[in-house]
Amino acid sequence: MAAAGAKGPVVVTGGAGAIGAVLVRALLAEGREVRVIDNLSGGRMEHLADIAADPRLSFLRADLSDPDRYQERFRGASEVWHLAANADIQKGTADPGIDLREGLLNAFRVMEAARNHGVAKLLFSSSSVVYGQPTVFPTPEGYGPLLPESIYGASKLSVEAFLSAFAHSYGLKTYLFRFANIIGPFMTHGVIYDFFEKLRRDPTRLEVLGDGRQAKSYLRSEDCVAGMIFVRDRAAAPVNVFNLGARDRISVREIAERVVAVHGGRARIEYTGGDRGWVGDVPQQLLDIAKVERLGWAPTLTSAGAVDRTIAELARERGVGR
Amino acid sequence: MAAAGAKGPVVVTGGAGAIGAVLVRALLAEGREVRVIDNLSGGRMEHLADIAADPRLSFLRADLSDPDRYQERFRGASEVWHLAANADIQKGTADPGIDLREGLLNAFRVMEAARNHGVAKLLFSSSSVVYGQPTVFPTPEGYGPLLPESIYGASKLSVEAFLSAFAHSYGLKTYLFRFANIIGPFMTHGVIYDFFEKLRRDPTRLEVLGDGRQAKSYLRSEDCVAGMIFVRDRAAAPVNVFNLGARDRISVREIAERVVAVHGGRARIEYTGGDRGWVGDVPQQLLDIAKVERLGWAPTLTSAGAVDRTIAELARERGVGR
Repeated sequence: MAAAGAKGPVVVTGGAGAIGAVLVRALLAEGREVRVIDNLSGGRMEHLADIAADPRLSFLRADLSDPDRYQERFRGASEVWHLAANADIQKGTADPGIDLREGLLNAFRVMEAARNHGVAKLLFSSSSVVYGQPTVFPTPEGYGPLLPESIYGASKLSVEAFLSAFAHSYGLKTYLFRFANIIGPFMTHGVIYDFFEKLRRDPTRLEVLGDGRQAKSYLRSEDCVAGMIFVRDRAAAPVNVFNLGARDRISVREIAERVVAVHGGRARIEYTGGDRGWVGDVPQQLLDIAKVERLGWAPTLTSAGAVDRTIAELARERGVGR
Repeated sequence: MAAAGAKGPVVVTGGAGAIGAVLVRALLAEGREVRVIDNLSGGRMEHLADIAADPRLSFLRADLSDPDRYQERFRGASEVWHLAANADIQKGTADPGIDLREGLLNAFRVMEAARNHGVAKLLFSSSSVVYGQPTVFPTPEGYGPLLPESIYGASKLSVEAFLSAFAHSYGLKTYLFRFANIIGPFMTHGVIYDFFEKLRRDPTRLEVLGDGRQAKSYLRSEDCVAGMIFVRDRAAAPVNVFNLGARDRISVREIAERVVAVHGGRARIEYTGGDRGWVGDVPQQLLDIAKVERLGWAPTLTSAGAVDRTIAELARERGVGR
């Protein structure tokens, strides 16, 4: 393990996940010592393969349910990025205990470990799903009531609530980032990934859940990470809540058409119908990002741009297309 | 145990608590079979003493952390009122695990038991503290962001979040009642009770936490219970969020002066200073009750009226005064 960087060591839970692996690179690029904790249930070591030899990077395979296994890593850390969580909303609906345990209870243990070790900043990957089905678009951070429709969303809002209380009760600063759909390298789920998987299994048809008119905003993970780091350095309230997304949105139908086009344009798109993809789905999502823009940061890509880059990357990776 | 009432049996967790005991009486008066579950950590059997012989009332002493001990009580119940929780905000700040376990985890177990037994309605005693330190007064249900400052408040918002998700994921109807300060019979804590206790120990002086300018709205528990039952019968969304409070507020200074007056007016009132009573205190609270009023219900007393009645009751009970 290397000596602490100028700003002190950083802990990243879920650092082997799709967003975590991008964040770890950005923190190393800042010159930080980065301590990853991941149980590899969703994350993969290969996401960190090309940086594994970096002496400032350490990796601990541990489950967050057992603080004794990992809380020593919090010693001397100046900030903790808590990204680890179940990422599969439908799994949480099938068994609500998953998001309770892996979402809230693990986050609570991370908060306690951070508090015990005097960590100054706790940063959390929340989600647009805390807004439930909002009636205001784009949806600002001050929107209420917050009535999430999925168990996953409930766990995100619960973690936000406890982070807010920890900030006010114990003095650490907290950062609640409400993500739009985050896409980019290292993906193992999500609509674009799923479409590629479906077309790999059957190149003649693409089944789309819902009527295809669900429309959301998409943000590349590199932009997402850059935005979080920007906010970390410039916002200093006890609780800092920021939406992170693109200014526009794109429909599932458009994404399906773009994925099919990359595959040669021959697959038939079939919609299962209904206004949402699954129980707990939020068919319309567009975050108001004026708050982070006022702070001085904006994403480099529109939703369509982020989707196109991700489709191109996946196609190249899989040898799909022209 | 008696046969089910016209509307089916009712489970009340925390039914031996100050609000629970008033609710149980109201449900019995409706002709319901009432099944109380209480661990008697805060509640007291004597609160139910005069109705203990009612054949429609049953009591189980059980801790909600152990569903096997109590979930049989949910069988055939048409509604579950979940009132049991730690009620001491400062205790939660000293040990945040208390509100996590007794607030959220126990509520989650109750939700699971309700879901497993096909209970139609789940009703929950939430709190104005979910609003954190709001910037809008009176504060409407749609206020955001929801950033509670106490661990107790975090647990209340977490339970709300999971109830919302349960409603949308599994079809039961949920009722989230955000309480102002509830006062009335059976109290074992709270500002008025505390003032009486302090004057019992030392009749010459009354120490008041903060500068006395904290001002909140107060609602009698009988009004609170009447409001909840009214809403239960008339609101039928998946998630029904309602503030319950008085239209006005009263300052801690005024309450202190009224309590001192009842005690003969001789005690010196001493303020500890600062704009709030303790870490996590919300010094200004006034809920917007227009939503429940539009539904057709309003409290019978102002905050001052509720405080005066409660002071008079406590004085009579303790043989205090003129």
